[in-house]
Amino acid sequence: MGRDEQEIRQLVATWMSATKAGDVEKVLSLMSEDVVFLVTGQPVMRKTDFAAAARAQASGNAPHFDGTSDIQEIRVFRDWAFMWTRLKVVVTPQGGGKTITRAGHTLTILQKLNGKWVLARDANMLAPVASDDVTT
Amino acid sequence: MGRDEQEIRQLVATWMSATKAGDVEKVLSLMSEDVVFLVTGQPVMRKTDFAAAARAQASGNAPHFDGTSDIQEIRVFRDWAFMWTRLKVVVTPQGGGKTITRAGHTLTILQKLNGKWVLARDANMLAPVASDDVTT
Repeated sequence: MGRDEQEIRQLVATWMSATKAGDVEKVLSLMSEDVVFLVTGQPVMRKTDFAAAARAQASGNAPHFDGTSDIQEIRVFRDWAFMWTRLKVVVTPQGGGKTITRAGHTLTILQKLNGKWVLARDANMLAPVASDDVTT
Repeated sequence: MGRDEQEIRQLVATWMSATKAGDVEKVLSLMSEDVVFLVTGQPVMRKTDFAAAARAQASGNAPHFDGTSDIQEIRVFRDWAFMWTRLKVVVTPQGGGKTITRAGHTLTILQKLNGKWVLARDANMLAPVASDDVTT
């Protein structure tokens, strides 16, 4: 595994841990200024949209977030790369409530800016799946 | 617009026209052997899966297909590129039946193989939208 691939895997791990910790500023530091998030059934989301949604959630009664990212492929072309993952996200409302599990694939374009890999374009194909009927 | 971008735009136009014409072999010639199709809520589809599904449809009572692809961005890196589109697909069953319209974004990785651009990875985020209540 090359150094770039190692750094991209670390980026994914940092993204997941910062999201779980509710560290919005950290997550925002992991994407380019012109990042584009494409999500099934939703309008295009850019960095300002992502920041507003994440901050609103963090300042309120933030749900508990958990997830696993299983990287299927990483291909690096100098300062650009693409990555395909299987992603599973489990969101549990605070104070009890039904856990929502979403799973599916992501296809992500990454860019190396000032020597650091960041997310540049992200295609999110997650769909709800039957949860484990966990009562919280 | 560079020559590569022109060729990729032509690839998209050919893909749409061949799909509308039900020309399965032509569509198959526009993708790499190791192509991966990622669709929301569905398992990974590879070239053999795509071919089997397309041939089964073409040999039966094939529905009428129409669609528009609005390219939002193309970025080329030597022999690889990515493309983001807004895609709308309208499928009308033969012999009458409800028209189904699906719309949303795609994020596609393209590869130049033997001097020819082909699809290599495709993320499909289309979702059903309200149709125009067309009775056929």
